[in-house]
Amino acid sequence: MSVTDELVAANGSYAASFSGGGLPGPPSRHVAVVACMDARLDVYRVLGLGDGEAHVIRNGGGVVTDDVLRSLTISQRKLGTTEVVLVHHTKCGMASFDDDEFVAELESDVGHRPGWAPGAFADTEQDVRDSLAAVRACAFLPHTDAVRGFVYDVDSGALTEVA
Amino acid sequence: MSVTDELVAANGSYAASFSGGGLPGPPSRHVAVVACMDARLDVYRVLGLGDGEAHVIRNGGGVVTDDVLRSLTISQRKLGTTEVVLVHHTKCGMASFDDDEFVAELESDVGHRPGWAPGAFADTEQDVRDSLAAVRACAFLPHTDAVRGFVYDVDSGALTEVA
Repeated sequence: MSVTDELVAANGSYAASFSGGGLPGPPSRHVAVVACMDARLDVYRVLGLGDGEAHVIRNGGGVVTDDVLRSLTISQRKLGTTEVVLVHHTKCGMASFDDDEFVAELESDVGHRPGWAPGAFADTEQDVRDSLAAVRACAFLPHTDAVRGFVYDVDSGALTEVA
Repeated sequence: MSVTDELVAANGSYAASFSGGGLPGPPSRHVAVVACMDARLDVYRVLGLGDGEAHVIRNGGGVVTDDVLRSLTISQRKLGTTEVVLVHHTKCGMASFDDDEFVAELESDVGHRPGWAPGAFADTEQDVRDSLAAVRACAFLPHTDAVRGFVYDVDSGALTEVA
């Protein structure tokens, strides 16, 4: 039995006791969260979010890529969100390697370089600041006045805001 | 008090009772989930996932973009995941608009077109199939034999696999 099979079985139990249907698509709290994909960061629990309340966008690092700006643009213009919360975290895997070395490794293994930059970073707080700046500078977003960034401590469970 | 302030306050309560520190970065169940950002899709609960068990990558639609392939490549090569689970869902906001019209709207409002395609789709199951194919075709991923795709029903809580 694969892990995927186990997740499907777990969903069977979830669905059997599910009573949360009928919610609308637009997030009821009008907020979009952009967070790292890290397994220790259960965004709904960490931020006290319930079903239907917030968009949750996640990728390696929680960095603000074009795909994140695409998702935020849809979130704000089509589904009514107005606030953005960025969540990076301590002990991030993105701080454990170097972009140039990783690209060289990929090129050596596969025969060509990826069309994307891996996005590794050494300074988590600076990466939050860069991400805040990228969201605020996006011309397609109608709401950039309520954009805030945080570092989540995976060992304490606490958020610290990055100014 | 903004919604963001409310989320920060909720995190204070979460951190006060937090006892899950010390987990390693690599996901203990070696799986990465790629899902839509939809607010009704609480991935950890829907799949029965606990802290530290799986990477969770999310964007508008759960579509497999370059940024998702970047994140999966890091997930597999740097953090040891070997299975991929794609989760799209019923009543998706991405099925509520048309790419060409949305791009025209953005160009009219902002003065230029975005560098990304919005990624709207009309057929959710076909979009899952396209996403499965995109993951399986990615040369940078060492593990593409356990890639499966599902549609989550936001009204029943149940997953249905797309073959």
